[in-house]
Amino acid sequence: MSLYSQYFYSDEVNELLSDKQSIAQMLRLEGVLAMVQAELGIIPADLAEIIVSCCRTDFIDIEKLRADLITGGNVAIPLVKQLTRVVKNNNVEASKYVHLGATSQDIVDTATVLQIQELIIWLDERLDVLSQLLLGLTKKYRQTLMVGRTLLQQARPITFGLKTAMWLQSIERAKARIKSVEERVLVLQLNGAVGSGNAYLPKEVVQSVAEMLELNFAFSWQSQRDNMAEWASVLGILVGSLGKIAKDVSLMMQTEVGEVFEGAREGRGGSSTMPHKRNPVLCASILANANRVPHLVASILSAMSQEHERSAGLWHSEWEVMSEIMMLTGGTVERSIELLQGLEVDEKRMLANLELTRGLIYAENVSLALAPKMGKIQAHELIEKACKQAIAQQKHLKDILSEMSLDLPNLEELFMPVHSIGNSLDIIDEILDNLSNH
Amino acid sequence: MSLYSQYFYSDEVNELLSDKQSIAQMLRLEGVLAMVQAELGIIPADLAEIIVSCCRTDFIDIEKLRADLITGGNVAIPLVKQLTRVVKNNNVEASKYVHLGATSQDIVDTATVLQIQELIIWLDERLDVLSQLLLGLTKKYRQTLMVGRTLLQQARPITFGLKTAMWLQSIERAKARIKSVEERVLVLQLNGAVGSGNAYLPKEVVQSVAEMLELNFAFSWQSQRDNMAEWASVLGILVGSLGKIAKDVSLMMQTEVGEVFEGAREGRGGSSTMPHKRNPVLCASILANANRVPHLVASILSAMSQEHERSAGLWHSEWEVMSEIMMLTGGTVERSIELLQGLEVDEKRMLANLELTRGLIYAENVSLALAPKMGKIQAHELIEKACKQAIAQQKHLKDILSEMSLDLPNLEELFMPVHSIGNSLDIIDEILDNLSNH
Amino acid sequence: MSLYSQYFYSDEVNELLSDKQSIAQMLRLEGVLAMVQAELGIIPADLAEIIVSCCRTDFIDIEKLRADLITGGNVAIPLVKQLTRVVKNNNVEASKYVHLGATSQDIVDTATVLQIQELIIWLDERLDVLSQLLLGLTKKYRQTLMVGRTLLQQARPITFGLKTAMWLQSIERAKARIKSVEERVLVLQLNGAVGSGNAYLPKEVVQSVAEMLELNFAFSWQSQRDNMAEWASVLGILVGSLGKIAKDVSLMMQTEVGEVFEGAREGRGGSSTMPHKRNPVLCASILANANRVPHLVASILSAMSQEHERSAGLWHSEWEVMSEIMMLTGGTVERSIELLQGLEVDEKRMLANLELTRGLIYAENVSLALAPKMGKIQAHELIEKACKQAIAQQKHLKDILSEMSLDLPNLEELFMPVHSIGNSLDIIDEILDNLSNH
Amino acid sequence: MSLYSQYFYSDEVNELLSDKQSIAQMLRLEGVLAMVQAELGIIPADLAEIIVSCCRTDFIDIEKLRADLITGGNVAIPLVKQLTRVVKNNNVEASKYVHLGATSQDIVDTATVLQIQELIIWLDERLDVLSQLLLGLTKKYRQTLMVGRTLLQQARPITFGLKTAMWLQSIERAKARIKSVEERVLVLQLNGAVGSGNAYLPKEVVQSVAEMLELNFAFSWQSQRDNMAEWASVLGILVGSLGKIAKDVSLMMQTEVGEVFEGAREGRGGSSTMPHKRNPVLCASILANANRVPHLVASILSAMSQEHERSAGLWHSEWEVMSEIMMLTGGTVERSIELLQGLEVDEKRMLANLELTRGLIYAENVSLALAPKMGKIQAHELIEKACKQAIAQQKHLKDILSEMSLDLPNLEELFMPVHSIGNSLDIIDEILDNLSNH
Repeated sequence: MSLYSQYFYSDEVNELLSDKQSIAQMLRLEGVLAMVQAELGIIPADLAEIIVSCCRTDFIDIEKLRADLITGGNVAIPLVKQLTRVVKNNNVEASKYVHLGATSQDIVDTATVLQIQELIIWLDERLDVLSQLLLGLTKKYRQTLMVGRTLLQQARPITFGLKTAMWLQSIERAKARIKSVEERVLVLQLNGAVGSGNAYLPKEVVQSVAEMLELNFAFSWQSQRDNMAEWASVLGILVGSLGKIAKDVSLMMQTEVGEVFEGAREGRGGSSTMPHKRNPVLCASILANANRVPHLVASILSAMSQEHERSAGLWHSEWEVMSEIMMLTGGTVERSIELLQGLEVDEKRMLANLELTRGLIYAENVSLALAPKMGKIQAHELIEKACKQAIAQQKHLKDILSEMSLDLPNLEELFMPVHSIGNSLDIIDEILDNLSNH
Repeated sequence: MSLYSQYFYSDEVNELLSDKQSIAQMLRLEGVLAMVQAELGIIPADLAEIIVSCCRTDFIDIEKLRADLITGGNVAIPLVKQLTRVVKNNNVEASKYVHLGATSQDIVDTATVLQIQELIIWLDERLDVLSQLLLGLTKKYRQTLMVGRTLLQQARPITFGLKTAMWLQSIERAKARIKSVEERVLVLQLNGAVGSGNAYLPKEVVQSVAEMLELNFAFSWQSQRDNMAEWASVLGILVGSLGKIAKDVSLMMQTEVGEVFEGAREGRGGSSTMPHKRNPVLCASILANANRVPHLVASILSAMSQEHERSAGLWHSEWEVMSEIMMLTGGTVERSIELLQGLEVDEKRMLANLELTRGLIYAENVSLALAPKMGKIQAHELIEKACKQAIAQQKHLKDILSEMSLDLPNLEELFMPVHSIGNSLDIIDEILDNLSNH
Repeated sequence: MSLYSQYFYSDEVNELLSDKQSIAQMLRLEGVLAMVQAELGIIPADLAEIIVSCCRTDFIDIEKLRADLITGGNVAIPLVKQLTRVVKNNNVEASKYVHLGATSQDIVDTATVLQIQELIIWLDERLDVLSQLLLGLTKKYRQTLMVGRTLLQQARPITFGLKTAMWLQSIERAKARIKSVEERVLVLQLNGAVGSGNAYLPKEVVQSVAEMLELNFAFSWQSQRDNMAEWASVLGILVGSLGKIAKDVSLMMQTEVGEVFEGAREGRGGSSTMPHKRNPVLCASILANANRVPHLVASILSAMSQEHERSAGLWHSEWEVMSEIMMLTGGTVERSIELLQGLEVDEKRMLANLELTRGLIYAENVSLALAPKMGKIQAHELIEKACKQAIAQQKHLKDILSEMSLDLPNLEELFMPVHSIGNSLDIIDEILDNLSNH
Repeated sequence: MSLYSQYFYSDEVNELLSDKQSIAQMLRLEGVLAMVQAELGIIPADLAEIIVSCCRTDFIDIEKLRADLITGGNVAIPLVKQLTRVVKNNNVEASKYVHLGATSQDIVDTATVLQIQELIIWLDERLDVLSQLLLGLTKKYRQTLMVGRTLLQQARPITFGLKTAMWLQSIERAKARIKSVEERVLVLQLNGAVGSGNAYLPKEVVQSVAEMLELNFAFSWQSQRDNMAEWASVLGILVGSLGKIAKDVSLMMQTEVGEVFEGAREGRGGSSTMPHKRNPVLCASILANANRVPHLVASILSAMSQEHERSAGLWHSEWEVMSEIMMLTGGTVERSIELLQGLEVDEKRMLANLELTRGLIYAENVSLALAPKMGKIQAHELIEKACKQAIAQQKHLKDILSEMSLDLPNLEELFMPVHSIGNSLDIIDEILDNLSNH
């Protein structure tokens, strides 16, 4: 992770998911649990206060945790041991009420959910930034003509704004998708060893803890991992959508295309020995993540057939992978923002590229214009012939046609990209309207 | 697919996704498109009617489609050619209006969405059956005592109804999840070659077509595949949840556990030479699918970084994989219904297995009961000693303890599983309540 | 599979792996087993002959197999039943010796290995064709200048022959890789129910059967699946290498690059309405497969932790996936041959593209030439300035430099691609030499 | 990585692949390159010596590397910059010869290969330890009777030594597999910007560098990644084989089976509140890794279709994933050694479990013994009836049969596991023989 922590990742998200923060979230649950158990008269209030005061990461020896983890098989076991010792040093009696009724998995799972909760806040903000950037690009380049490409071939003109509007829509759907899963994903795990609860974890306790942590109440999901799989998928889909943007940008940055560029800030992607190169350095990072994350999502999905009330290995396989998915998502989002913030657009080159086929991309226009006059089939055949001629003679199709004395008063017009962009502008306007009404 | 069509798949879902049905859905879109274009005055109504009357699979030569596919690179190209020829044989003029304004991907993608639409109807029904089966099991075995297991070790008692209630919850969430994605998944694709629409595809046409097909209107998602990825994920998660059930059943069917069995209908899983064997044949099929589907979901996620306005390969990689995911899901759901319908439960064996540790699974109960009397630590140490003795002498822990003359009037009770199931019954009742109020 | 059987697949490989061929291979093992057991005096020779004569697919009702599969859980169980009935109809006594000592998995696994054996023969031949095609391209385009590209940016000149030589090397390694795994992959499975053999399967029987089938002898690998995983990986790697070729071709086919094209045979990839389009239809098929196969390989790898002496689900998950990997490999190889056979190369465009940067790709050459005269740093700074000027004034770097009156008698030469291709020609020659000595 | 560095990983392998070691390997190549270029008269020998003396990690500011990485897009760019500065501080002239002719990817790829080279040494040693441990278990438990299980059902007796011999064989194949790929995997990358070499990298230089690093010579594999994919696969297969062992152990450790246990060292897997629990803590770690690694292998395979002479993203996606695969493999191997070193075997329980079906697992024996006397079909029917009776009356099959006054003088023998283990002992002996002759 380390060498590449700035390239594939986001410092902020890495921090959210750091070891220290993971432990802090676990301790947070231990503290809230004691507090709620005290409120409901299950444990003495003064002792609960002592427990709460001990739930601080600076009392924890992380190195020791790491070493002890292999004995217990998860991080909660040595953590609870350390916490109990800290409490005991304060008050022996209080130490008896630490972690009361809870099981390791309650602690580990809930800490993960609390990190997801924080990531959602982070994501909401960043996806809004992405939306705003894409909105800005869409407005600015609403009428910027460029060629639309299918199967890597020039097809018909669009505007660059239409392309960015499509990117924008995928981000809007990502936001809606996150909203739609929160209910199932942001759920407390606090159900005791086998998910049956116990005398120390009556429903009131679980509900109060959930409320205090602003999580949804849930019965045990110790070995029902659909919520984790759903969250992994949602992030995987988001990364895929960002990968699509980076793919487009990297292709448009090709020397032979040259339509857009990553911002040249700080010599990024440049090369002193190859001054013409504008390496898609940000795109490469995003595309790398977009290649990795799908497999990590599959790793989580593959871990769903967990045994009985707690799995022997599949649950364990989630820990690092869930973090990795979230951290790579963080980096992908951050790099995408940087990419769009700095994006340089060469509108002239876009226009010039529309002329690369010497008018052939407009052949269909002419064919359609001639059809009512001479019949569809005749028109088609005539144009086909003209195209072949244009290619053979390396001439512009318009020139070939104008030599043919056809009944086409608007020939010039048929070869203007602005008349070949379909409903591009209407589509853009409607998308922008929907967003501003949103 | 073929040899195993009955084992890993569902005939009904296979039929829904058959070649013939795929083509039927494509033709359905062609017909509706012509009809709507006629209604809106874009094409002559009588010619549209001719087109509609030709949109029938029995006019299509599937073998030829298959052979021609390699030339065009997707199935819509040769299909439209064949359709046009059929229409032309009826009316030359009408053939000019076939597929007007549409692009191949419009046809292929929308046909997929229409199949998803049908699969959702099928799934809704089947998941309801699954829910009902699980509801029945949960009610029936609400109080059936068994051991809860963590890391494949006996941990503490639960009831079998608690286990099935957890299974049930995952199915309920699957249903909610499907509901929550319909909006984004069930969308029409009808946006022309580069997604910009065109004169034959004004918004009114697209909207009317969407309405007639009961799909949501959408701007182009030709190279924004988040909806496909979302649908793949939702099915992947469902299969994972069913895999979890099959995993539990297969483990409980072990000769050494013997708590539940697949229904013995028709000699299934039996062996004449090994009369004791009750092979988990249905579970094996479900678990096989649960191992396969996550990778197929990843295949879809990996295909998201599609180039420009239509991809050269990644889109193509979705076709068979999306079908495969849906078909394997169909089989997994059907096998799971069969599994739960036939499930045989050996309540006596469940009870007997609770005694396998000779009372050790109740050690914690005793320790907690003694704590207020002698202090937690002393209690714990005493019980630890007693456990070691029980193991060494192969005696029941209760017998060891009763020889120790402890102040434990309720010793018998501490060793009764019914007193160790936590809030199992309350949890079950609340889950059942929620469902009936639902 | 069906609609796309011509596009993603190879008819020949599909045939090799068809249901009928699978059954034929299973029957082949049954026949050989009986024969060998007769030879070694374990069963009567005349009865063995009857068994052998019954091991024919036309005696088998495949539909019934399909339906019965769900009862037994694998295809061997109903197949052996049908075979036994066929034999019994001939001779009741002989029917007692059918499948003697063998277990279902022996039959299923060995049939798979026999199919791999046939696929290897097919692959050897096809990979030789691929090598020959690449050899031909390498010789033909040994000196054809084009630009080498890194990160999708023009970097420095190479020759097209260098590129095809690199492709060629990956195919040569694929061939070596297949050779190196045959020993472990082409192994008989014939070890009875729990892999311990039995009185009907003494070592002599297993060895003789192996010899007759030209397979290697092996002890049970019923739940040790490393050989299957290895074969899956080898094919996955081959598909990846072919995907790399298709990726390059598809990028070089871009309208804006236009350096190579898929053969235009039969209107493939063309479009009557878009006459300029040369869709990479073969590349799209290859790239689609290259996106799918890695996930299928992972599916096999994920299935390796099989339980005890035979798995309940993981083994089952291999069946269709192994076939799918082999069939997709077949299609990928066949499409790649078609791609290379028809490849059209536009050498002029390659040369023209070398000029797109107006000499900037040669900046390093000039810098290196000046260094001994004015010092590396001074040279570098001077050239950097010249480059900026060239870009700003949209002039050729050579022109800028020639205006600067530098001590560069060989200025023209420095801007000739042929002097910038490093050791390209030597590398090509050595690769060709190695191959012809091979 | 960190919290779990002791649980899923190996300290030694983590160290081998640490940031510092990665940089050390890169610097090692830079040093060797300078040295060889000096030897061949390409650069001055005294300056090369200065460069070599500067190639030390303690001269490198790793924090700065990390921060600068995002500008250049890979670690070699800022590293070479730092190295050049260090050299320049010593000797300005020498700094001109740093990294001469090489490209970033040469450095990054070769460093990875050098780490693989070290990992192979580590693995060779550890796999020998694993072999020795399995050899020891196989000898010790050669005759230890236990039940063989298929589909999680008791099938027929084997010996525990047969099981461990099968495990052993998979490790032996893993060793052979590593040997067989070294030739293709341990290859130098040193081919300049576009893989064409250059004047500073004539073949002699590349060959000498390869020799000094004990790597194989190779032409460019900058965008031909089959060797990386092959290495990833080989490790994935090894992890899968170790996962199989852990799966078996975890299932045999079940409370209801109780045949083997992880060593109880240091309270591992134990629980003070649940004294009967023997959690498979090591197995859980191994199984977790076995669930993760296949997806990471697929990530590498998915990255093979790299663009042109260097990829924009796919290459980048390999970096962390290759390391992760190697590190998880390290952990899996180390945990497996610990598992086998500490393995406790309960031979009595194994024997007892053979009796769980009350003789039903021997039904086939009796059927076969009766067949010659009364005909196969009659024998089969009789035994089937007896089995049903045994199940219904919960009696031992032997008792049922002895009441039936059959002509079975050796009835006792038929129910002795030792007579039902097929060729188990011969198989074991041959495997042991092969190994000692090896």
